[in-house]
Order: sequence, then structure tokens, then C-alpha cells
Amino acid sequence: MRDFLPEEAHLMKFIEDKARRVAQLYGYKEVITPVVESYELLSAKAGEEVRSRMFVFKDLGGRDVALRPEFTASVARLVATVLRNEAKPLRLFCVGSIYRYDEPQRGRYREFWQSNYELIGSTKPEADAEILLLTDSLMKGAGLLSCAFKIGHVGVLRGIFDQEGIKDDAQSRAMQLMDKKQYDDAFRVIRETGMTARGLQTLERLVQLRGKDVKGVAKEMKDCVRDYGKAVSAVENLEEILELVSRSRTTLDVTVEAGFARGLEYYTGMIVEVYVPDLNIALGGGGRYDRLIELFGGEPTPAVGIAHGIDRIMLGLQEQKTALKVEEEKSVVIVPISPSLIGDALRLAQLLRTGGVHVEVEAMRRKTSKALEDANRKGVDFAVIVGEKELKEDAVALRDLRKREQKAVKIEKLVETIRQV
Amino acid sequence: MRDFLPEEAHLMKFIEDKARRVAQLYGYKEVITPVVESYELLSAKAGEEVRSRMFVFKDLGGRDVALRPEFTASVARLVATVLRNEAKPLRLFCVGSIYRYDEPQRGRYREFWQSNYELIGSTKPEADAEILLLTDSLMKGAGLLSCAFKIGHVGVLRGIFDQEGIKDDAQSRAMQLMDKKQYDDAFRVIRETGMTARGLQTLERLVQLRGKDVKGVAKEMKDCVRDYGKAVSAVENLEEILELVSRSRTTLDVTVEAGFARGLEYYTGMIVEVYVPDLNIALGGGGRYDRLIELFGGEPTPAVGIAHGIDRIMLGLQEQKTALKVEEEKSVVIVPISPSLIGDALRLAQLLRTGGVHVEVEAMRRKTSKALEDANRKGVDFAVIVGEKELKEDAVALRDLRKREQKAVKIEKLVETIRQV
Repeated sequence: MRDFLPEEAHLMKFIEDKARRVAQLYGYKEVITPVVESYELLSAKAGEEVRSRMFVFKDLGGRDVALRPEFTASVARLVATVLRNEAKPLRLFCVGSIYRYDEPQRGRYREFWQSNYELIGSTKPEADAEILLLTDSLMKGAGLLSCAFKIGHVGVLRGIFDQEGIKDDAQSRAMQLMDKKQYDDAFRVIRETGMTARGLQTLERLVQLRGKDVKGVAKEMKDCVRDYGKAVSAVENLEEILELVSRSRTTLDVTVEAGFARGLEYYTGMIVEVYVPDLNIALGGGGRYDRLIELFGGEPTPAVGIAHGIDRIMLGLQEQKTALKVEEEKSVVIVPISPSLIGDALRLAQLLRTGGVHVEVEAMRRKTSKALEDANRKGVDFAVIVGEKELKEDAVALRDLRKREQKAVKIEKLVETIRQV
Repeated sequence: MRDFLPEEAHLMKFIEDKARRVAQLYGYKEVITPVVESYELLSAKAGEEVRSRMFVFKDLGGRDVALRPEFTASVARLVATVLRNEAKPLRLFCVGSIYRYDEPQRGRYREFWQSNYELIGSTKPEADAEILLLTDSLMKGAGLLSCAFKIGHVGVLRGIFDQEGIKDDAQSRAMQLMDKKQYDDAFRVIRETGMTARGLQTLERLVQLRGKDVKGVAKEMKDCVRDYGKAVSAVENLEEILELVSRSRTTLDVTVEAGFARGLEYYTGMIVEVYVPDLNIALGGGGRYDRLIELFGGEPTPAVGIAHGIDRIMLGLQEQKTALKVEEEKSVVIVPISPSLIGDALRLAQLLRTGGVHVEVEAMRRKTSKALEDANRKGVDFAVIVGEKELKEDAVALRDLRKREQKAVKIEKLVETIRQV
């Protein structure tokens, strides 16, 4: 885990703000769920990969708990319980820290931050399309010059597996290996299931289909899986989603990848990951999970959602060197020239803050010259120097630390003067 | 632990924003530290009370770690390590979740949220005064009608204990009992240390001194501890701090309490807690800790800081029924009258969002009347109804859901029209 010092912390909060803004613009309501939840809940459908990397422990009451490795299980719990009677569709947003015991490497830490959007209650392709559109809004809003979407559909592989009678756990194992691009191992698992030659052939051809020509790839996919009815429907669903995105006149850089799988077990439909050039790690990922809420005791409820890595978006911005210059407001240091004037310095500080000015009061009782030198080094814009003589005339000396100019200013004009310079 | 549903989550984020705003106005830079830290670090000076309520566990690498029970240890670690060469004073802000295994009760949960301000490097009373002033700014900024400060000084009790030769651990035990108002038990511990009759008499009189007449109480305290030089200096320090606050012309509702102690062991000077009427739980607390940073391997560095409970401020607002009405922006639902128009609905949604309008797109393919009914029930302001005929003329039907009025509006005028109504 790591610390974020002021500059990075500022950028993190900037991205978090953008994520919250996107939630508002798309009608997603924010909820806050705990960092610690029951292990049973968090592990239920996370998949072996995530499960093995969870921070699990017993609380003082002896219960098995864990630090959340993602938000979706918590949101599904809300929807299955306290929000079960809310009208659908329900759009929910959350943002916060997430924990996975990974080997630390570039862009991958054991504590990381995500913004998370879930659209609950709709099976329709416009719901999936919305998840893609809001992701595009967030990436652009944060200042990324470009990002690329990798999109697939769990229903294509599952459609073949199901029709071939492959058991769920073998399906999951094979798909997790595919997620890690370990196709040889995946096919070994598949062969051991006793899949038919036709099934194997179909799969082998299918996982090679990918490309940016969305319509072309979809056509090839349909041809490839033509013997598997549910797989064909899945491809058609994917086509509909991408057609709606295109008709919204939002240009996304999409690569369709037929053999694309994701580590989490609960997906049932479209799946997506977002990348930026030169960064070999996803900035966001999600998909459709139509059976998860039911698993937590709710009504059968379709849903689609996505999570974005706040700290990875930061990395993307740093990579593209596009981190927006932060517009800092004017900053002021107030320096009383003698200890008897500290009370007045504090009073003036409160006055300026009421006017929205960022103010530090000299708190070390250093000599005026020393305090000004320090302020200058820190890039403070102005110094307000409080002296006995000026104060008797309800004034102070205002020093422009960049221009090295100084003048007397009436206290009543101080906020105005600082704002205008 | 608990969830915050949209209304409460919104209020929590509103208070967090205010806390961040106060940090900016007072020149505090934000840092983000991990939720999980080494148990050794977090427990070093937390005090037995806090230590026994920490969430402790072993991570997968076998290290003893814990969920942070407060921010100060983490900030002290930063100051002692990566920030050790930063010029002083250093003003640092953080906000986030905190964990203590308490018995759940009103206003007390196992996961709670704090904003935390630390002013590092100054021994001067203006630093302590600043902590009080910024707390007042936060409480008022969040919308609390009134709040009261309970203020004491650890140096008064410690001055007596030290001069009487009482060992540190007995001091800490006695002060923790005083923190819990268990004076009888505290005096039993003190008597067992073999304290002199004069010392006992002084303490017994001292712990009864409290009141809003700051100058009067301070005078009585000085008289009471007159035989204990360091205790007298501590009272004088407290007087200076409160004199500076008063001279800043900020009116605080202060009660000085001579026997006031706090659960954390690391305090060395002024200590403070903030309350609102009718809520028997502190909304904030802090004080001076001049030896903590040194303990973490840093240079001896004076510091003073305070933490505020975001969720407790929320409770205070709910108690005072002053939670600010949230100014929601205009919200719009877009309803295509047939599935062939969904792409256009998505396109119009992106257009409106670019104009800053909060937009939901009908994602269930319900009949127009049903979708409008649902939007009405949810308090949405407008519906944009997308029909083939209007679209041919680059227009849509804009329905004011409150007034139940509907008119055709050109798409190019749509943002403007919605903003003006």
C-alpha cells in the first residue's frame, strides 16, 4: 500500500470529483458501503482468482470478514435487501478504496480506488450502451487524450459450453485461464471435459476472432458459432449494443474480442475493459451480471455495471502527460511584525477566508524577512504584513510576492484588492 | 458497520467537501494514507483504550496489520519519513474512514469517517488557536447552528504528576479513567502511586474546576496548582491560546475543564472536544502532541491537530434539523416512443449532458405513459419525448412534469430551454 502526497492526492480527488459529476449527469445516486463485509458475501461469486487474493480475517466477534475486493457484491447486497422495493431501473454509484493482495507492480497496489456504476433492472442493450458511454464521458472528463475499449460477450463462450453440456466449474476454470491469455491451459481444461470435436473446433476458431471492424468481426463470430443458438443470440446482443453506441454519435475506439473473458465469475453478458496506449493495465472494467442479485436473495434482477480505477486513470494521465494544471486560487500568508499583533493577524485571516481567500497565518513567530522568504519559496502569491502603525489607520501592507511590490491597503478593501490583482 | 443510502451519502459528501474547503482556506494540503497499516505503528501511542478496540489481523505475508483507528499516527509517520525534509510549519489534511471495534450505539459505529488537520512544526499558541478556529469554520460551514468547545490542557495534570514523581504508565491509567469520568477509580490509582497529601488535595480541587468564564477558571486553576511550576506554565499556555482566539474576534462557546483528559496517550498540551446540544457524543477532538513524531523516528517536532467525525456532524445536523436543502440541478428523462429511436435518445442525452443537464435515458423500453409516470413519481423535472415526426424537424417534445405542460422544442434550443424554465 502507499501514500499519496499533496500533488497526487489532489489529482486523485480531481478524478473522484469527475466520477461523481458523471454519476450526476447520468442519474446515478451515490451510496456508501463498508470497507469490511462478511467473507461469505464478498467471496460468493468473486471467482477463485479474486478470492485467493482477498484480505480475510476474523473480527473480534469471531466472524469471518474481509476487505472488499470490489464493489459489485456490496451493491448487489443493497439491491437484494434494503433497496429491494425501489422502482427499477435503479442507477447506483459508489467510489472508494478496494483491497487485493497482489504482488505490487506498476499501477497495481494492494489498496486502490474505484468509481463504480451499476444500472439495475434492465435487460436491454441500451443499458449496456449507457455503461460504455458514461465510461467514455469519465475518461474524457478526467483529461485522457484517448482510450480504447476491449469488448466481448460471456454469452458466446457460455452458449457453446452450455450446449456442449460442460459443467459450470469447468467453464469458470477455462474462462479464467482465457482471461489470463493462457489459451493452451484453457484448452487442456476444455478437452478434459470431453467436449465434442465440433465444439473444440468452434472454440479454437472463435478465440482468434478480434478486431476494430465491429460489424465484420460480429459477422465472422456468428458464422463461427452458427451451430450454437445461445451463442448466436449473444453475438446479436453485442451487435445491438455497439449499434446503439454508434447511433448515439459517440465515437469509441472499440476492439471486439471473441475470446475475451474476465476474472469475475458473475458476468452473464457483455464484458468490457478500457485501456490507454502504452499502459498495459486496464483503467476500467465491467459487464452484465443478470444473476448476481438473485444469488444474494433478491428477486431475479438483470444488471450491468462498470468500475474504473481512479489511481489507474491518474497513471494514464501521467503517462499521457495530460494531467490538468490545477487552477489554484490566490494564496496569502499573514505575517504580524510583533507577537502583540498575532490576534489581529488571526482576525484578518478569518476576514479573508470569509471572502474565499486561502490564508496561512505565520505560526512560528519568525522574523518578517524569514517568513516572507519561506512564503516566496512555497509559491504563495501575497503577504499581508500586519504592523502597529498601519493598523491604527485600519490598513495593512500588502506585498505581491511575485512582483516584489508592496503597498498599503485599507482592510475593508483587502479581499477585493487581492482578488483583482 | 452500515450503509449510507443516497440521501445520507449525499450529506456525507457535502460535509466532506466542506472539510476540504476549510483545508484549502487555511492552507492545509491533502494527503491520502492507507486504511491498513502496521499494527506496531498504529498501536505505538494510541493508548490501551483504543488499542484494545483495533481491527488487527495478519496479512497474507504474515505481518501484523490493523485498520487505522485514527489518522494521527499515519500523518506522524509521513512527517518522520517521506516529508522529513519539508519546511515547517507543515499543514496537512486528510479525510476518510476509521475503524474501532466499539459496541454499536447511537452515533458510534465500527466504521466512521473523519476529517483530520495537523499543524506541524510550531510550539506557539497561535497554532493551537488555529485548530480551534478552523473547527469553528467547519462546524458553521456544514450548517450547525451552534457548537460548544470543551478545552483542557494535559500539561496541568502531567505537571503535577511529574513533579510528584508518578510513573508514566500510572499517569496514563489515571488519565484514561478521568477521560471516562471514573474519578473514583482514577484517584484510587493515584493514591496507590504514593502521591503526597498536597498532590492529592491539589488534584481533588483541580478536577472540580470548570466553567465558561475562561479567565476566572484559569485564575482558579493557577491558584490551585501554584506549587507545581510546569502545571502553572500549562495554564498560562491555555490562557494565551484562548486569548488569541478571542482577539481574532471569533466567538466560541468555550468551557474550560481542568480535569479534562482524552483517551489517546500522545497528547502533551491543549486538548479539545466539540459538542452540539442534545447529542452526548463529541463531534470532534484533538490537541497538541509534541513528542509523537520523534517517536516514529523523526526529528523532535511539535505538532497540534484535530479530527472531526463526518458522520457525527451529519447526526448533529439531523438533530438540529438544519441539514441544508440540497440544490439539485434540473433533471431530465429521455423517452423514445419506439425502439428504433433509442440511438437518437442516447445521442440527445449526450448533448444535454455536455450542457450540464442531469439526464436519464429510459432503459426499460416501457410505454411512454408508463415511463412518464415513473419519472413523475421520482421527482424528475422534465421529459424529452423523442418521436419520429418531431425528429424529422430536428425537434422533440419537452414535457414539464410538474406543470404537466408539453411543447415542441428545436434540439438546438433544448439545453437553453431546460435551463431557463
